[in-house]
Amino acid sequence: MYEHTTTVRVRYAETDRMDVVYYGNYAMYFEIGRVEAIRNLGVSYKDIEDMGFILPVVELNIKYLRPAKYDDLITIKSQIKTLPTDHKIIFDQEVYNEAGKLLTIGQVKLYFMDASMNNKIEMPAHMKEKLSVYFS
Amino acid sequence: MYEHTTTVRVRYAETDRMDVVYYGNYAMYFEIGRVEAIRNLGVSYKDIEDMGFILPVVELNIKYLRPAKYDDLITIKSQIKTLPTDHKIIFDQEVYNEAGKLLTIGQVKLYFMDASMNNKIEMPAHMKEKLSVYFS
Amino acid sequence: MYEHTTTVRVRYAETDRMDVVYYGNYAMYFEIGRVEAIRNLGVSYKDIEDMGFILPVVELNIKYLRPAKYDDLITIKSQIKTLPTDHKIIFDQEVYNEAGKLLTIGQVKLYFMDASMNNKIEMPAHMKEKLSVYFS
Amino acid sequence: MYEHTTTVRVRYAETDRMDVVYYGNYAMYFEIGRVEAIRNLGVSYKDIEDMGFILPVVELNIKYLRPAKYDDLITIKSQIKTLPTDHKIIFDQEVYNEAGKLLTIGQVKLYFMDASMNNKIEMPAHMKEKLSVYFS
Repeated sequence: MYEHTTTVRVRYAETDRMDVVYYGNYAMYFEIGRVEAIRNLGVSYKDIEDMGFILPVVELNIKYLRPAKYDDLITIKSQIKTLPTDHKIIFDQEVYNEAGKLLTIGQVKLYFMDASMNNKIEMPAHMKEKLSVYFS
Repeated sequence: MYEHTTTVRVRYAETDRMDVVYYGNYAMYFEIGRVEAIRNLGVSYKDIEDMGFILPVVELNIKYLRPAKYDDLITIKSQIKTLPTDHKIIFDQEVYNEAGKLLTIGQVKLYFMDASMNNKIEMPAHMKEKLSVYFS
Repeated sequence: MYEHTTTVRVRYAETDRMDVVYYGNYAMYFEIGRVEAIRNLGVSYKDIEDMGFILPVVELNIKYLRPAKYDDLITIKSQIKTLPTDHKIIFDQEVYNEAGKLLTIGQVKLYFMDASMNNKIEMPAHMKEKLSVYFS
Repeated sequence: MYEHTTTVRVRYAETDRMDVVYYGNYAMYFEIGRVEAIRNLGVSYKDIEDMGFILPVVELNIKYLRPAKYDDLITIKSQIKTLPTDHKIIFDQEVYNEAGKLLTIGQVKLYFMDASMNNKIEMPAHMKEKLSVYFS
């Protein structure tokens, strides 16, 4: 399994009139978690796109347990539990507040595709090499 | 079953560098669909909040089939398939483009709560009355 | 002078914990106003981009008089007071609430450029033709 | 003069189909700069709100020189050039990319108000004490 955590501070713009983070913004938090998890492997997601690959999200599932609040320093945990063997990659993601309370649980499924979005492909070799280390 | 559709035009701000709508923005489209579906019943969601109730989202599930693009006039379909009998309400939601192609399928579960977010409650009587008509 | 108005409803996602529209979102409202003002001329901004032109914003000035609130049906007024004779176009923009109260005044300056963002150009002939009618 | 700088990484959600940061998002970057500048004084903006004060933005002026791009680690510089003596405070703000290129220049004027937004007030004593040190 590969796991990475990163922290971000909740912005004013991300709150809503219920005085909590707007529910749609967790997709963005999850994305930040994935991007930093990939960067931590030694590849940047931007590089992957620059090489002509994209990773569109095909499925997003979120359970909201407790709200994040303005100015909270939240921790985003991202896990890849299975080494991809085809065009699919699944991230299990969680958000915690500073008190260590679990706020949100999610799962995001993405496809590796060429930039034209016409063809599913396998995980780029460069990324697979880096990720495989965690599954041996 | 209660069903309502509404249309919105995709904004520049909602696109990303992949030249499609950012995946996190569908949560917002779904919210617009729910809000207009409730308004069509003769209650506004704002009124519900003004009466001291809130409907936090507790679960969000989305499948992305095709991307929405800039300036598309998209149709958001919102269905309530079961009349709530306790604190839960479930919306089945779909997004279509102008060509009638299904872009996104989602399901959103919300709780009726008092505004303090401390207590789950049943659907406010005023809203239940309006909604029940569709389930007789 | 050319003037166009359009209305949009304030979304939950656009509010912040101060229970008003987040100040950064007026840039998006102004953009909607400009896009609909251009569409009303008989050209879509999307078409302009598809023809290889872009209109990056180079200056934005906003005065906030009163806040917009959740679910308000706001009116965005967009004015072009001077027919562009070079690469610059200026929109004067205002936002009003349903009671007709002026909420926000802004001015946005954009450049006509080719899509590579390397060269300033004059207003595309197709758009100039449509706009000139209002300045004769 | 008081000056503070902070860095943030450009998120995918903040880009648009022009492959640059959407112009409206700089208001959010500026807000992050102000919030961190205030935190660096030893007061958090959240604390200010919790004490019953708010700082609504009343004026925003931005000049866009160069675009920020996806995944850029941008630097936000925030300056208070004049110690507030009444209800107004002005931040001069700039955004730089990693190459040190100036991308955006802005000025933001805010009012100190009580939380009801009914009365302009002077800068809270606690904050004034911290800020005054930089103007002696």
